[in-house]
Amino acid sequence: MKYELYYWPSIQGRGEYVRLALEEAGADYADVARGARGTAAMMKLMQQRGTPPFAPPFLKAGKLVIGQTANILLYLGSRHGLAPKTEAGRLWVHQLQLTITDLVLEVHDTHHPLGSSLYYEDQRAAARKRTDEFWDQRVPKYLGYFEGLLKDNGSAVTGRRITYVDLSLFQIVEGLRYAFPNRMKAFERKIPRVVELRDRVAARPNIRAYLASDRRIAFNEDGIFRHYRELDK
Amino acid sequence: MKYELYYWPSIQGRGEYVRLALEEAGADYADVARGARGTAAMMKLMQQRGTPPFAPPFLKAGKLVIGQTANILLYLGSRHGLAPKTEAGRLWVHQLQLTITDLVLEVHDTHHPLGSSLYYEDQRAAARKRTDEFWDQRVPKYLGYFEGLLKDNGSAVTGRRITYVDLSLFQIVEGLRYAFPNRMKAFERKIPRVVELRDRVAARPNIRAYLASDRRIAFNEDGIFRHYRELDK
Repeated sequence: MKYELYYWPSIQGRGEYVRLALEEAGADYADVARGARGTAAMMKLMQQRGTPPFAPPFLKAGKLVIGQTANILLYLGSRHGLAPKTEAGRLWVHQLQLTITDLVLEVHDTHHPLGSSLYYEDQRAAARKRTDEFWDQRVPKYLGYFEGLLKDNGSAVTGRRITYVDLSLFQIVEGLRYAFPNRMKAFERKIPRVVELRDRVAARPNIRAYLASDRRIAFNEDGIFRHYRELDK
Repeated sequence: MKYELYYWPSIQGRGEYVRLALEEAGADYADVARGARGTAAMMKLMQQRGTPPFAPPFLKAGKLVIGQTANILLYLGSRHGLAPKTEAGRLWVHQLQLTITDLVLEVHDTHHPLGSSLYYEDQRAAARKRTDEFWDQRVPKYLGYFEGLLKDNGSAVTGRRITYVDLSLFQIVEGLRYAFPNRMKAFERKIPRVVELRDRVAARPNIRAYLASDRRIAFNEDGIFRHYRELDK
């Protein structure tokens, strides 16, 4: 089956966690909105009667249309060896992905604390405060948690085998390095195992090939991770 | 099996979505941190090796410890007739619950736009701006979406049968009425089906008994939905 991924064509955003899983799995998929059908096909699916997705990304798998990033990964995980097959294992990996979901939203709020419909330029002072709090409180809490899991469990977050959570954690490190190079550089010594995991994920053949391809969109200031020099230190 | 719910004992918060599902299902459960063992038992479980939950709420079901509200509901849903048993149906209901999760986080950010570790009193101006944006943009988008689902699908969000999403939507209406009575009163005429659903949920025997009991904690200014007069209009 060929999957169809629907997401904004010019950003990594939330779609990237799905792309990484599809690429690692070697799955056959089309990134529909980046192709000839463009975002019009995406918008059309969002207006389907009865079961419209609230927002991109969503994945079409045969007749199924699955929305919400973590939900898509829940679906893909056990089918492609990126999550355990047991119910307990699937729930545990999904729980961790939902924690990553929360973190991603907090990353977004560093540059849009007053609301996503307002321009960044109209909320710069608030963004500075929110970003300070994010680095003082939230990054240590989230990344410290994953560092602790790696300490307890081994080379991947849930044990020895890579899951979609490990791929997502790779993306978190990449994103924080892009958006906050100075802050992240100073912080990384506190999370050596997370950084090692990032390196192991980056070295996996399918991921390496993906990152070198034009399927990987570059970070930019329309995505979740944005580099504004005044928010870095 | 008797479930154990672990959540902060003095607020509805995110635990309330789980409580509503357990109550509707007539499930046997203990709200552990409200009992004699208090929050100490909760803290202890959060320090378990290998699979610690990141934050409350979490549910102990036999040996399983399940964290993240939507993940707990995913687990409970098909076991207690609050979600379809088919994979497609379970994913669809879960997707909607994850959309509610996003909304709940945005509600929280109306009073804490600069960060949850700072006092509300130190971010009142920012809270006013964020709250305006929330009511201008986000409430219409989220509740308009659920209104549309009810229009397409029938008396419950996904069809004729109540799921845990309908219970959560009840809680959203209750919370918005508590936190923003004036704004919500003006807005409700735009979402008549959501309001009717709220009434149907409130009238269900198990829910009605729960709401009248002391197991239902009152809304207060430590929870997600907080009433600050200056944020209402």
